[in-house]
Amino acid sequence: MTSPKLKSNLDLINECDSFPYPHKSRQLYSQHLHTYYHLRIPTHLNTTLGYLLPSVALTLSNLPDWSVDDTSTPKTVTLTTGEDESTRSAAVEKTCLAMRETGHFAVLEKWRGELYPVYGPGPGREVLFNIERSASPLFGVVSYGVHMTAYTGEEREVKIWVPRRSSTKQTYPSLLDNTVAGGIPSGESPFNALLRESLEEASLPSDLVRRLAKPAGCVTYFYIRDSRAGGETGLLQPECQYVYDLDLTEDGEGVVPTPNDDEVEGFELMGLGEVRGCLGRGEFKPNCAVVMIDFMVRHGYLNREEEGDYVEIVSRLHRFLEFPLG
Amino acid sequence: MTSPKLKSNLDLINECDSFPYPHKSRQLYSQHLHTYYHLRIPTHLNTTLGYLLPSVALTLSNLPDWSVDDTSTPKTVTLTTGEDESTRSAAVEKTCLAMRETGHFAVLEKWRGELYPVYGPGPGREVLFNIERSASPLFGVVSYGVHMTAYTGEEREVKIWVPRRSSTKQTYPSLLDNTVAGGIPSGESPFNALLRESLEEASLPSDLVRRLAKPAGCVTYFYIRDSRAGGETGLLQPECQYVYDLDLTEDGEGVVPTPNDDEVEGFELMGLGEVRGCLGRGEFKPNCAVVMIDFMVRHGYLNREEEGDYVEIVSRLHRFLEFPLG
Repeated sequence: MTSPKLKSNLDLINECDSFPYPHKSRQLYSQHLHTYYHLRIPTHLNTTLGYLLPSVALTLSNLPDWSVDDTSTPKTVTLTTGEDESTRSAAVEKTCLAMRETGHFAVLEKWRGELYPVYGPGPGREVLFNIERSASPLFGVVSYGVHMTAYTGEEREVKIWVPRRSSTKQTYPSLLDNTVAGGIPSGESPFNALLRESLEEASLPSDLVRRLAKPAGCVTYFYIRDSRAGGETGLLQPECQYVYDLDLTEDGEGVVPTPNDDEVEGFELMGLGEVRGCLGRGEFKPNCAVVMIDFMVRHGYLNREEEGDYVEIVSRLHRFLEFPLG
Repeated sequence: MTSPKLKSNLDLINECDSFPYPHKSRQLYSQHLHTYYHLRIPTHLNTTLGYLLPSVALTLSNLPDWSVDDTSTPKTVTLTTGEDESTRSAAVEKTCLAMRETGHFAVLEKWRGELYPVYGPGPGREVLFNIERSASPLFGVVSYGVHMTAYTGEEREVKIWVPRRSSTKQTYPSLLDNTVAGGIPSGESPFNALLRESLEEASLPSDLVRRLAKPAGCVTYFYIRDSRAGGETGLLQPECQYVYDLDLTEDGEGVVPTPNDDEVEGFELMGLGEVRGCLGRGEFKPNCAVVMIDFMVRHGYLNREEEGDYVEIVSRLHRFLEFPLG
């Protein structure tokens, strides 16, 4: 029996940052851009806020509050109702509830009752409207999260706290995750989201996280949802994950992350070799693999001499997203 | 007297990563792409290796070994001579010497006698040809370098070793630089280039650098040369800088970088506040400012709560370059 080929780091990035690049394949990129409808609002007509599949655009064309134009270039879906955040948000909520009612959209079956912000262009980072979390991939808007890697030990002797997702989770059951990871709901700062998730998912007390967690950049990618994400495939999900490190080597000695809800089965302390093996065998949730690769790049566990795809990997970990950002 | 407005971190990135983005301004980007000639070789006709200004393309159209087509889309400049690295390199050398002879190209007055590699597409990272370092911006090909930041002290108490460039340097005289920085000539690995430059520029012994220097990713940007770079303005310079950290806090206690050639006037140990002030006043060489911002992001001295442009900054530090990469 031959063992299956291990995934390379670039393979893992391709699985998560799966939307084509204009320069890598101009034709494939154009096909994609001609397929999707651009999400707009009347006060910012030159700004695309997200990309929608034709099936979603068709549904919206039958709902009030929306105008769909498939003769323009690009094709557009415009939210016509609302002149400020709260009236736009109310219209979007009504829409999402109506879409959920039809039962046509599997992603809405995991209704979260949690709002995600959609930002406008310009330095003010105005929230144009909020949208139910489970609906955000239907509209292809950027979503934001936090991911933290807790570790102990130095250099190549480092050991990383890796949780395994519960086998009963609807998305990516039993796959490996980052020590702490979660979405940032509207109105919460990244660091406050991190404090909340650290307690909820890993029982890490806020005073510890406040003292030892260090922001270390963000990872951005453009995911085309596949079957493992649950719900419709082909939906567009540009994402930004703020990344943090939690070095438990000295001050955090003896700290052990433990599950505090039913999302995580348990935590394991893995050496670098074991982490690499799990990455190669595809045992990590795709976006968690990407955050782990970023961790290894930043800490020098990957370098150009060993990794031929180094420069492309480092760029792809930080994709420039073509939408206003928070 | 009012003090001049300080540059923001995004201003500093805009100065270095100055080539437009397709999504930020499609029109400006198209204008740029229609202005430039795409550098090609016959064995890889769909691969653009660099962008050339019309003035350079005009000169090449009068030289043997080149074919210039300004009726195609995009306009192209093709190296017609050579079937392998050495014969192509010889043709490019002959061309560069002829261009230097005319005296028309100011950048060639700083002839370096040092070769830079131009890579082909695909995982093999084949060197298609080598080119004289000073000529690489005339052909708009990607160049590679190493930048290392040496520092001591922890958290916000960190102090960074910052050199000031010699006042007699032709490019960016008297501006601040990174502790160690230099180009990677053809055939040298990034880490070996770092060892060499560390000794040459900062008198840091190789055993120290081998023990303490840590790779921490790379910074990629697309620079349109301005007057401060010397020579012609408007030339295109996509660059990749491999970045390293040198933490002198414990094992490196007492180590003091000192000039070893005439490129650097001296080194100063600066606190974070001082570094920020110098960045804001434009006292750093543009690409060194970008490497310093990357350092501050990776170490958590910049975060989303304090820096509104955080996500754009982190993406822009890692631009996806539209050429084959080394």
